[in-house]
Amino acid sequence: MHTRQGLFELMQHKKSCLCVGLDPDPQRIPVSCGTGVTGMEVFCKTIIEETADFAVAFKPNLAFFEQYGAEGWAALSRIIESVPDDVLVIADAKRGDIGNTARHYAKSMFDGLGAHAVTVAPYMGKDSVVPFMEGFENQWTVLLALTSNAGADDFEFHGNPPLYERVIERSQSWGSFDQLMYVVGATRPEKLREIRMLAPDYFFLVPGVGAQGGDLDEVMKAGWTNFGGLLINASRSILYASADGDFGEAARNEANRMQKRMQPYFENSFE
Amino acid sequence: MHTRQGLFELMQHKKSCLCVGLDPDPQRIPVSCGTGVTGMEVFCKTIIEETADFAVAFKPNLAFFEQYGAEGWAALSRIIESVPDDVLVIADAKRGDIGNTARHYAKSMFDGLGAHAVTVAPYMGKDSVVPFMEGFENQWTVLLALTSNAGADDFEFHGNPPLYERVIERSQSWGSFDQLMYVVGATRPEKLREIRMLAPDYFFLVPGVGAQGGDLDEVMKAGWTNFGGLLINASRSILYASADGDFGEAARNEANRMQKRMQPYFENSFE
Repeated sequence: MHTRQGLFELMQHKKSCLCVGLDPDPQRIPVSCGTGVTGMEVFCKTIIEETADFAVAFKPNLAFFEQYGAEGWAALSRIIESVPDDVLVIADAKRGDIGNTARHYAKSMFDGLGAHAVTVAPYMGKDSVVPFMEGFENQWTVLLALTSNAGADDFEFHGNPPLYERVIERSQSWGSFDQLMYVVGATRPEKLREIRMLAPDYFFLVPGVGAQGGDLDEVMKAGWTNFGGLLINASRSILYASADGDFGEAARNEANRMQKRMQPYFENSFE
Repeated sequence: MHTRQGLFELMQHKKSCLCVGLDPDPQRIPVSCGTGVTGMEVFCKTIIEETADFAVAFKPNLAFFEQYGAEGWAALSRIIESVPDDVLVIADAKRGDIGNTARHYAKSMFDGLGAHAVTVAPYMGKDSVVPFMEGFENQWTVLLALTSNAGADDFEFHGNPPLYERVIERSQSWGSFDQLMYVVGATRPEKLREIRMLAPDYFFLVPGVGAQGGDLDEVMKAGWTNFGGLLINASRSILYASADGDFGEAARNEANRMQKRMQPYFENSFE
C-alpha cells in the first residue's frame, strides 16, 4: 500500500505532501487537555483528528513519549492506532545500531508500535541500516542525510564529497525507492536541489519548514518530482498554533493553510 | 560519585574494568527463566546478581527491551533498580537528535530509567550531543567514535582525517573528561592506540571483545592509562556462557575469568 506509487496516489488524492510532526512538549500542551501522559495523549489525538484531512503522514518523535517511560510508550501505541489507516506513520526515533540490535529496533517500531516508517542514523554504516529493510519490505527506512540543525555543520559536511553526499550515494544500493527515503532539511534549499540530482528516484522527508525558517515554496521548487518525492514536515507551527482550548481548530487551520500552498504542485503538468 | 576519578577508584577496588552488556535475546534465554518479558527480567536480574562482583558497569541495550513495548520499558526500569548502587549503568540507546528532543531523551535515560550514562550518535553534531550534558553534570555521555562492526568502514573512515578522528577532536571541547567518553571498538587495536593519543584524558567504552573477535590484552595494552581509561564490554560471551539452567553460574565464571585477566593491570606501576 505505501509503496512509492501508493504514497504518491495518497498525496494526489489529498493534494498534499504535509507530514505533521507530533512533538508534544509538556510545557506547551494546553491545560484543557489535562496533565501528564493523559494530557499528552488527548493533545496528540486531537491534533491527528483535526489535521488528518490535510496530512499524508504523522511523525511522532519518540523522545517526547519515552520521557514518560512505560506509560508514554503505551500512550504512543494508542495514539498511532488513532491515525486513519491510509495515512503514513513515521516513528521519528533516529535509531542506529548493528545487526541483531537493529532488527529488534525494527520490530519495536514496525510490529510493536505499528509505524510504517522509522528514521535511522547512518553513522555505523550498512549493517546498521539494512536490518530495518530486510524482512520489512512494506515499511520505510528514512535515513538521515543532511539535517536542518546548526550542528549539521560539524560532521555532515566533513570530507570531499561531504559526508551527507557519501551517505546518499552509498546507501541507494541498500534499498529500493519503495523502502528507503532520506531526511533532507529545508533550511538549505540549494543543497536540496543538489541532493535531488544525486537521488532522483527517492522520497525526501523534509523538516525545517516553519518554526526553523525553511521556506515551503523554495523546498517544493528544489525537490518536487514527477512522483511527488517530498514529505514536508511541520511540527511546532501546527501543534502550537494556539496555546488555548481552540488549539485543535487552530492546528486544523494551519494544516489547511499549508496544504493550500502545496495544492498548485498537484495541478500542474507533473501529473 | 561517578566522576572519572570515582570510576577509577571503583575499578581499583574491583580490579576490573568489565562492563557486562545486557542484550537479552529472546531466542537464547534459558527456558528455566520463563517466557516473554518475565523470562527476560529473570534472566537479566540473575546475570546482574551473579556478575556484579566482577563488573564495574552494566550496559542494557534498549532495543531488546523496546521490542516488548511498554512492558519491556517497565521491566528495564526494574532491572536497572536491581543493579548495586556503586556500579555504573550505561543505557545503550545510541540516541541522536537535536536540542529539545535530545533533552527529552536525556531525561528519559537519566531521570526516567535511572541510568548513569547513555550512548549517543554524533551524526547531527554539537546540538545533538551537548543537551545530554547540560543540566546532567553527574551523568556520562558516551559518544560513538569508531565502532566495532563491519559497517564502520562505510562512513566512519570517510574524509581526511577520517570522520571518527574528526568526531573525537571536535567533541572534546563539548564536555569534560568527567562527562564525556567515547565508544572505540576492540576489533582494531592499532586504531585504539592512535585514538588514545588523540584523547589522552578520556574514558573509552570498548565493545567487540569476545564474540566479535577483539583481544582483551591487546585492548588493555593499546588503551590503558594512569586513570584506567577503559571500560571493556562483553555481552554474549557472558550472557550465553551456558544455554541451560546453570547460565548464572556460567556467566559468573566467565566474568570472573575476564576480571582475572584485567587484574594485573591494576597491580603494576600505573597505580
